[in-house]
Amino acid sequence: MKLLTYKTSDSESRLGFIHNNQVVDMEDFGEISNFPLPNDMLELIDMGFEIIAEISEMINDTRPQDFEAISLPISEITILAPIEKPRKNIIGIGLNYTEHVAESARTLDTTGKLPAKPIIFSKPTTTVTGTNTNIIKNTKLTEQLDWEVELAVVIGKKGKYVTKEDALDYVFGYTVINDISARDCRREGQWIVSKGQDTFAPMGPILVTKDEIENPHNLNLSLKVNGVEKQNSNTKFLLFNINDLIEDLSIVFTLEPGDIIATGTPAGVGAGRNPQEWMYDGDVVEATVEGIGTIVNTIKEI
Amino acid sequence: MKLLTYKTSDSESRLGFIHNNQVVDMEDFGEISNFPLPNDMLELIDMGFEIIAEISEMINDTRPQDFEAISLPISEITILAPIEKPRKNIIGIGLNYTEHVAESARTLDTTGKLPAKPIIFSKPTTTVTGTNTNIIKNTKLTEQLDWEVELAVVIGKKGKYVTKEDALDYVFGYTVINDISARDCRREGQWIVSKGQDTFAPMGPILVTKDEIENPHNLNLSLKVNGVEKQNSNTKFLLFNINDLIEDLSIVFTLEPGDIIATGTPAGVGAGRNPQEWMYDGDVVEATVEGIGTIVNTIKEI
Repeated sequence: MKLLTYKTSDSESRLGFIHNNQVVDMEDFGEISNFPLPNDMLELIDMGFEIIAEISEMINDTRPQDFEAISLPISEITILAPIEKPRKNIIGIGLNYTEHVAESARTLDTTGKLPAKPIIFSKPTTTVTGTNTNIIKNTKLTEQLDWEVELAVVIGKKGKYVTKEDALDYVFGYTVINDISARDCRREGQWIVSKGQDTFAPMGPILVTKDEIENPHNLNLSLKVNGVEKQNSNTKFLLFNINDLIEDLSIVFTLEPGDIIATGTPAGVGAGRNPQEWMYDGDVVEATVEGIGTIVNTIKEI
Repeated sequence: MKLLTYKTSDSESRLGFIHNNQVVDMEDFGEISNFPLPNDMLELIDMGFEIIAEISEMINDTRPQDFEAISLPISEITILAPIEKPRKNIIGIGLNYTEHVAESARTLDTTGKLPAKPIIFSKPTTTVTGTNTNIIKNTKLTEQLDWEVELAVVIGKKGKYVTKEDALDYVFGYTVINDISARDCRREGQWIVSKGQDTFAPMGPILVTKDEIENPHNLNLSLKVNGVEKQNSNTKFLLFNINDLIEDLSIVFTLEPGDIIATGTPAGVGAGRNPQEWMYDGDVVEATVEGIGTIVNTIKEI
């Protein structure tokens, strides 16, 4: 199921799904199906992953003409970030593709050693923005605004001490995050100012539930700036794969429904290029993961 | 006003305040006052700091006998963390007292330079626990469990680009945090695994609104382990004071009502002692800030 959070000219934030290339409102679909469904992504996730099969069955049982009154063309809606306000900071993973470990060590302050355990950081909930919005570059804080396309995992149920074997049971679905990083904002090595500024987590465009992703460890991911490809890799090259990450993270902290793990970026970031490249006012950055889609954002300098 | 989150043997989490050494339930007080009041700390904070003056006035207008039915002796309640589930990760400040900068550089991997800007990190919402609970030490993850008493600031209203001069307008009140740190859990210099494990942010015992703290920059703070004093300082020695922190943080991210800033710890942590000292199963740690109170926690090894 392809889920999205959206608004129209008449409505605040709503939950919907894509059906026959149109957007169907989830709450309205619940009403015509006599089965209460929420208008918020986190509320849906809280119902448990099993709800997805139930909704899919209800969709199959619904006559095409009954969808008409509750569907909108995608052109008539504004897509918002699938989870506009996560329950805790987004969990980021650093240095999780081999060549990115190497390029980072050449130009940043990391060691270049392949990490023995996942390198974890966080991006505040206030970093979240959707596709087709501006990424705010505060030129008083940074000259070095960089890109990082990543597959993001959305957790579906509470978990502590989850094993690798069981890890995917705890996944609800997947989305794309562009882990925007102001390279010159590290403080005593800590990354949160670098990666935590408002609008530094463009997310979306949609959330694809796990049943629609045959193998999350074989997805192409790529990124373009002003139409020029800068990153192109595949999630099969993750150093710590999703199973590894969920096992490790759940030893450290309780995972909760709706938690988001940005799994790390492959090589090709601006900091790793020779000469280094950064993003400036008006630049357009497009981050794509196969099977999910592309988020497009424009840099706005203030 | 001295606010607290509590439960009784009959109730889930409730919001209350201390009046004549008893706990008065906030929602019940609203009912006898014909003025709806919430049963949750974040909901109260969302009403704005002005509500505190209104409630204080209502308290003055209430006859002592009317408090009886809605009051409980403190001995009959369990105090919970004042904000059990913050809206985003707790914002922590590292290296914010001069002597702690020096002791950290002697034994940890920090540079020893006085920071030019606040060193920011975060503690997930799942770290929060109250007074009189266990701090879980996972011996598979850490041998080096350390303490850090800190004054914590609770934000009262949304703010971006707040100036130092206006900063205290954005404060709702103050509490105590013990910023528990597993020194051997740093990964590529990042602190979130060190400081982010479940139960690593004991908080409380209460939240004191800012009108009751004459000068937040002149509060003694101290910490004992098994009754032996390990830290003893005063918030007047903060390198970046509360005004500085709010100005700086609000440039980076939007501050929101209920956000919590742990302002940093003074010298005397276990990592800085010679020989180094850590906490073990059964150790009792007490963290105190003048005018707020003491949080007491016991280490539980698993």
